[in-house]
Order: sequence, then structure tokens, then C-alpha cells
Amino acid sequence: VSVQLTKSTEKIGVGLIGCGTVGTGVVRLLQEQAEYYAKRLGRRLELRRVLVRDPSKPRCNGMVDRALLTDDFESFIETPDMLIVVEAAGGRGLVSGYVRGALDAAKHVVTANKSLLAAEGAELFALARKRNVAIAFEASCAGGIPIITALLFGLAANRIEGLYGILNGTCNYILTEMTQRRKTYADALAEAQDEGFAEADPALDVSGCDAAEKLSILASLAFGAAVETATVACEGIDRLDLSDIQFGAELGYEIKLLAIAERSQDQSRSPATTQQAKLSLRVHPCFIRGDLPLAQVHGPFNALAVYGHALGHSMYVGRGAGQMPTASAVVADLLNVASGWYPRAFSEMNVWLDQQPPAVLSDPDDLTSRFYLRISARDVPGVVAKVSAILGQEGISMGALLQHEVAAGQFVPVVIVTHEARQGAVTRAMKKIENLDVVDGSPVCLRIVDLPAG
Amino acid sequence: VSVQLTKSTEKIGVGLIGCGTVGTGVVRLLQEQAEYYAKRLGRRLELRRVLVRDPSKPRCNGMVDRALLTDDFESFIETPDMLIVVEAAGGRGLVSGYVRGALDAAKHVVTANKSLLAAEGAELFALARKRNVAIAFEASCAGGIPIITALLFGLAANRIEGLYGILNGTCNYILTEMTQRRKTYADALAEAQDEGFAEADPALDVSGCDAAEKLSILASLAFGAAVETATVACEGIDRLDLSDIQFGAELGYEIKLLAIAERSQDQSRSPATTQQAKLSLRVHPCFIRGDLPLAQVHGPFNALAVYGHALGHSMYVGRGAGQMPTASAVVADLLNVASGWYPRAFSEMNVWLDQQPPAVLSDPDDLTSRFYLRISARDVPGVVAKVSAILGQEGISMGALLQHEVAAGQFVPVVIVTHEARQGAVTRAMKKIENLDVVDGSPVCLRIVDLPAG
Repeated sequence: VSVQLTKSTEKIGVGLIGCGTVGTGVVRLLQEQAEYYAKRLGRRLELRRVLVRDPSKPRCNGMVDRALLTDDFESFIETPDMLIVVEAAGGRGLVSGYVRGALDAAKHVVTANKSLLAAEGAELFALARKRNVAIAFEASCAGGIPIITALLFGLAANRIEGLYGILNGTCNYILTEMTQRRKTYADALAEAQDEGFAEADPALDVSGCDAAEKLSILASLAFGAAVETATVACEGIDRLDLSDIQFGAELGYEIKLLAIAERSQDQSRSPATTQQAKLSLRVHPCFIRGDLPLAQVHGPFNALAVYGHALGHSMYVGRGAGQMPTASAVVADLLNVASGWYPRAFSEMNVWLDQQPPAVLSDPDDLTSRFYLRISARDVPGVVAKVSAILGQEGISMGALLQHEVAAGQFVPVVIVTHEARQGAVTRAMKKIENLDVVDGSPVCLRIVDLPAG
Repeated sequence: VSVQLTKSTEKIGVGLIGCGTVGTGVVRLLQEQAEYYAKRLGRRLELRRVLVRDPSKPRCNGMVDRALLTDDFESFIETPDMLIVVEAAGGRGLVSGYVRGALDAAKHVVTANKSLLAAEGAELFALARKRNVAIAFEASCAGGIPIITALLFGLAANRIEGLYGILNGTCNYILTEMTQRRKTYADALAEAQDEGFAEADPALDVSGCDAAEKLSILASLAFGAAVETATVACEGIDRLDLSDIQFGAELGYEIKLLAIAERSQDQSRSPATTQQAKLSLRVHPCFIRGDLPLAQVHGPFNALAVYGHALGHSMYVGRGAGQMPTASAVVADLLNVASGWYPRAFSEMNVWLDQQPPAVLSDPDDLTSRFYLRISARDVPGVVAKVSAILGQEGISMGALLQHEVAAGQFVPVVIVTHEARQGAVTRAMKKIENLDVVDGSPVCLRIVDLPAG
């Protein structure tokens, strides 16, 4: 005990870049839990300097002494006895320079910045390795859920076979509102904006790009291969029709925007192989069975289902955004880095993201899945006959068919669920179906993702 | 890269105690993933010795060279260059002596042995601390789910407010069968035994004792207080009646055997306090809302819902038992200990389990909850009037009432759902109700656990 008491008089200097929502949350935790963290760590975390754009503005709800604020990076980085820099500013540009400057000055870096890592991760990790410091980034993916910790350490014995993530809380909130309250996409989006879940410009979220950035980081860790965000095939939720969500519910499915990374199916059967896996990487809305735990992840919550070759299915659920959930992950990283084991874990476990070979992608047309198709039919018997013929030509067999009575003379929605089929074959069939004269407009096609039994 | 190649020629010696189901899984992973682990670790894990009861029997499916087998602990522990001992034998008695012997010989220990840790954890950790070695125990609770890693590191910034776990796969399997296939307890248990989920003597599982042991370990970590298994209030599933599960389903609830550890309710409102929390510790069957993700954890799966003061709700799901899921956790520990950071994390993060003050328990009678009551009534109007009066005397108000038509002259089940009430008041009311002449037998009383909104 005496050793600890002596140690607890020591201090570990921390610098903070950015004092917006997340930065304020970090400062709040460091102040309110100071005693608890000092006891855990045997040393005291001390905020030494805060880099902000305008030091004359009150920052961090007045919790930070103005004397600590600076807008000058050179002065910030030269703060004495500053061991760790927390980057809570977000974005790239200037911030990228700050992070590089901090690493170059041999500071450990804790960051929540997924965009920066997704785009420049390899370069940043190379720099960190050169300077023998850590980049900790638990908060960059799925907010407060300790999923990076799980992938790097808790699941270390497993060859990962697949990741299935709900990684964007805005999209999940919108889909939950559409599903549970039968709102249209436009109404649900407007409400998400009112509630503060969605940005004024929601494009990054609803297009799936935000989830794709997170997936590229998670897949790199899980598969030991460098994944570029641009190689993730991406479809958003902005063109989803409420009627498809309702038809899906009738069939026992729930709609989710899933970020998926999986070994191509022929390879997942021999997980022991050391040859580099071919990966399927994609973000798209899809149906999953309604009785899966993943289907019950509602509203702003995030989740990641992971399939390991030894463990099988495991799943991690929690808040993927927001001030305190994000600060929870940032401060966990800070504690783990401050204790000295996290930098060591990075070097000893070879988890430097710059040392991975580039990911090898599987051909998207080779992906097999069940599919949900909705066709707007002028003449139901004629459509079913012609559509069946086209599907048959492409080797696709039908599993279920759903059609409701409507008033005569209207276009009738006909819903078809296929058995397992190749993506390439379905794409070709959809083009032929669209050209049928008894069909109105483009058919709707959504994948039904059957999570492995694991 | 050249540094890694040099390092990978180095070897880390591993000893294994016990080569039954889990031990065989560990050996299988070490052999089948040898290249992958060597690449991760930069060094090769090498199985040097295996301690078994009878070295003449073929062990580990013939994967282990007979020359490595011994039944002599002295010879085992003196094996040269053996840095880490994996204990996969289970139980206490002799095994306790082996683990103490290994720690005393300054070997790091990896164990899946919850009973040993729950009973002797503090002594073992004191010994480990004295010898400056680690005890890693991810596999001791919830099998392959990396929940120890999450509590120790991923959630380190949080003051934990509550744990709600499905920690026994046998019970969860039985309850799932009762719920989904309307089997009786006896039939579901027999089936679990046929399927290999339940032991021939299921008492430890169905009584809740197994879950209580795991809870005592998890609660010690989460709350920084030493929890003795005997202080966990324990009710099993063996007296559950199928009709209660069905009435619960009608009301929108799912039955689960939950292991619960929470700060007493008055204290959870001020999580920043450094004074030691009063804890409520219990394992009992209860109803939870059917639309919660936790309610969708079916069959042999385990799950732990954790409430942190910063993160709020997070949940971890996966297989809680079985050869490869357990081996997944054991080998993750082995990799993390072999890398050198896990021992360091233990010393730097002050997570030695022997240094905690004893847990302070809250008064069980002070626990508030909603309650499900089922009364067997001879005369429904008379019973409802008399029961209402008794509940009113105890300050308990009724939320819902459910009663089905039955043939005349039979006893009629009357189901009552209370609003929030104190446990002590409900216990008193139940005694009075039992004594009513219009009531047959003992009323059934089950808690309805409302997980925090978080």
C-alpha cells in the first residue's frame, strides 16, 4: 500500500486538442472521477494544456482554467511533462497535422477520430511505431462499446470470420422509427434532426459512408489486412420505402443498415489457413431475422456481431455516439495508455496498422445471399409467370411469395423471397424484370442476411 | 520486419494442467493456429509439459506427445523454461495446490476455474502479487465472451452501477425450451441432459450457485469490493411452473435467470461519490421486458448487461461454455500474458483482487421492484378483494390483473402485477395472502426487473 501512496503523488501530464462536445465530456470525467482514476492508476492524470481555435471563448463549460488554453500548436506541444495527447477535435486537415506533430514529439495519442484513422491510419501508425508511442482509438468505432479492446485482446485467439455491425446510430434511429411507428424516411429523418441524433447535413450518415469508415478500421484489425474505405461497397438508407419495411415485418424480418466484413464463403470453411483471406466488404440496408438479438438493437444504439472460428458468435451492444459514451472510451484509452501497458500491447502484439498487407477483395458478384424482391405489377398472374421464368433462367429459385389484394386497375406490389442466389445472377435478373412491360418502374431488391449459426 | 523474424525464433514455454474437454481445446488451438499466434506475438508458444492424472491414457485426442505427460506435480513445475501454466482441470482440492505451487514458482497462471477463484481468489492474487506474476481468468466467467477484458480495460473510465447477467447456459437453455416449446421444467431438464448442456447432477446449475460464483468474481471487479459467493442471495429455476412463464408472456415478459449486482438505488444517483457503495447481490429467476436485447439471448448463450455511469447500457453476448468457446478465452489470456502486457496491466491498473475492501451489502428488504404474483383462488371476487386489502396495508399498489375463465369449482389462477414495491413489504404481504382461506397453497412471487433506461 505504501508503494501505491507514493506513486499516487506522481502525475501524468495530458494535453487536449479540441474542447467541443467530446472534449468537454473528457474534462468532466477527469475532474469528477479524479480520485477514482488516481486510485486505479496509482498516479494522477493532470490536464496540462488545451489547444482550441479561440482561447477567448469560454470552453468546456468553464471547467478549464483559461490559462491552460492556447491556439498555438507549437506552444501546446512544448508543454513540459505532457506524456499523452487526446485529440477530440475530429475531422482532418489541420487536425491531421496536430496528430502527426504530437506523434513526432513522441507523445502517445488517444483519438476518437474515425475519418482521420480510416484515411491516414497507416501513415500515423508508421510514425507512432517510429517514435515508439501508442495510438489508442477505442472511441473511433461504435462510440463507448469496447469493441477495439475485444477485437485486439479478448478475441485474440480467434481467426475472425465475419463482422456484422450496426455502426451508425442516426440510421438505426431512423430505421427504428420507420419500423415501429410507420414513419416515412423523410419524417423519421426530420425527427432525428429535431432530437439531435442527425446532423443538419445527414449525407455522411444516411449514405452509409460513416459506417464504411468505421468498418474499414474494424475489418483491418479483425482480418489483419489494410482496408481502404473506398473499397467498401456502400448503399444508404435514403431510398428505402416504408412498404418494404412492412412487407419484411410480415415475413418475420427487421430492416437494419449493416456494415459487413466477411471472409469469402469458400475460405471460411478452412479458418486455419494462413493464406490471406479474400474479404467481402459492404454497407447496405438488409433484412435480418426479427428474433435475433441484433434485430432488437433499436434507436441510437450500435452493435457489432463478431464470428470467431473458436468462439463462434459474440455480440457487443451499446451507445455509439454522444458526449459521455464517447468520453467513456476516450478516457479508458487514456487510463490504459497512462498505465504503460497499452503502448506495450501495441508493440508486443504486432497490432500496428501500417504493417498489414492490402486487403484482397472477393468479387461482389460471387456473394451469395437470399434476396427480397418487390415488383410493381400491372397484371399479377402475368408478372409472376414472367418473373419466375427470368429467375429460372438465372438459376434463382423462389422461396416465398407475398401479394395483397388491392383495388382493381392499380399497380400491385408482388414480393418474392429467393433461396440462396449469386449476386451477379440477381443483378442480371433485375435488369430483365425491369424491362418487362407488365412491370412498373424498377424492382426493389434487398439482401436477406442470414447470420451464421455459430 | 527483420526484428520480428528474429523474435519469432524465440519460444515461450507453456505448461498445461488437465487435458479434458477444455485442455484439449487449448491444445487444438495452439497446434492449428501456431503460425498465426507466432506472427501476432513475434514468438512461438511451445507446450512443454502436461500434468494429468493418468499419463498412460491417450490424452487430448492424441495431439500431445506422450513424453510430455506426467502425473507428478514436482516434475511438472520444474520443467525448464516454462513461463506460463494453464490450469484447465477445474475444481478445487488438489488443483488449488497446483495453482498455488505454480504461482509460488513464479509462473503466470491462466485459469478457467471459477469455483477456485470465487472461493480462494484473494489468497491466490496475494500470492501472484508477491511473486509479481499474473492470474488471467477471462474463461472463468461467461466462457468465451471477453467480459473480464471489457470490465477491466474497456470500461475502465466508468463507475459501474449495475451488472445483469445470464451466466448459466444450462438454465438459459431450459428456460428457452419452457418458453418457446412449452415444455415443463422436468422435460426441459431431461432434454438439456440428453443434449449434453446439463450435468448428470444439475444441482449446481439449476440452483443458481454456478451463476452466483461467476457473479461474485464479476462484481468484485466491477465494484472494487471483495464479494463472497455465500453473500449472493440465490434462488434457482427448479420450482418454476410453466403456467407462470405463459402468463408472463401474455403480459409481454420473458423469464430469465439473472445474476444481478447493483449499487443500492439511493447511491446510484451520485456515482461520483468515492465512498464505498452498498451492493445488492442476487441470482433469481425474473421477468424482463420481452423486447429487450437481453430477452432475445436464447438457448445456451450467455450475456452480461453492464451499466456504467458514463457509457450507460452496454451488453456482451456469446457462448458461455463448451470446448472451443472456453479455449478461445483461455488462449486469449495466454497470448496476452505471453506478450508481457497483461502482467503489467495487472500491476499498473491495481486490479489485484486481494486488495479490495469487503463488499458492503444493502438490506434485501430495501430492494424495490415490480412484482408478479400468482394466487390460486377458490373464489375470485373474494380473493381479489382480500388480496387488494392486504397489499394496500403494506403500501403496495396493483398495476395489472390477469384472470382466465376456467370450469366452475376449480381453483383459479389470479395474476397480479404490482407497481414498484419494497421487497420487505411484499414478503410480509405474501405471508398474509398464504393464510387466506380462499387461497390454495403458497402464492408464486417473481420479480420483474426493469433494466435501467441507460
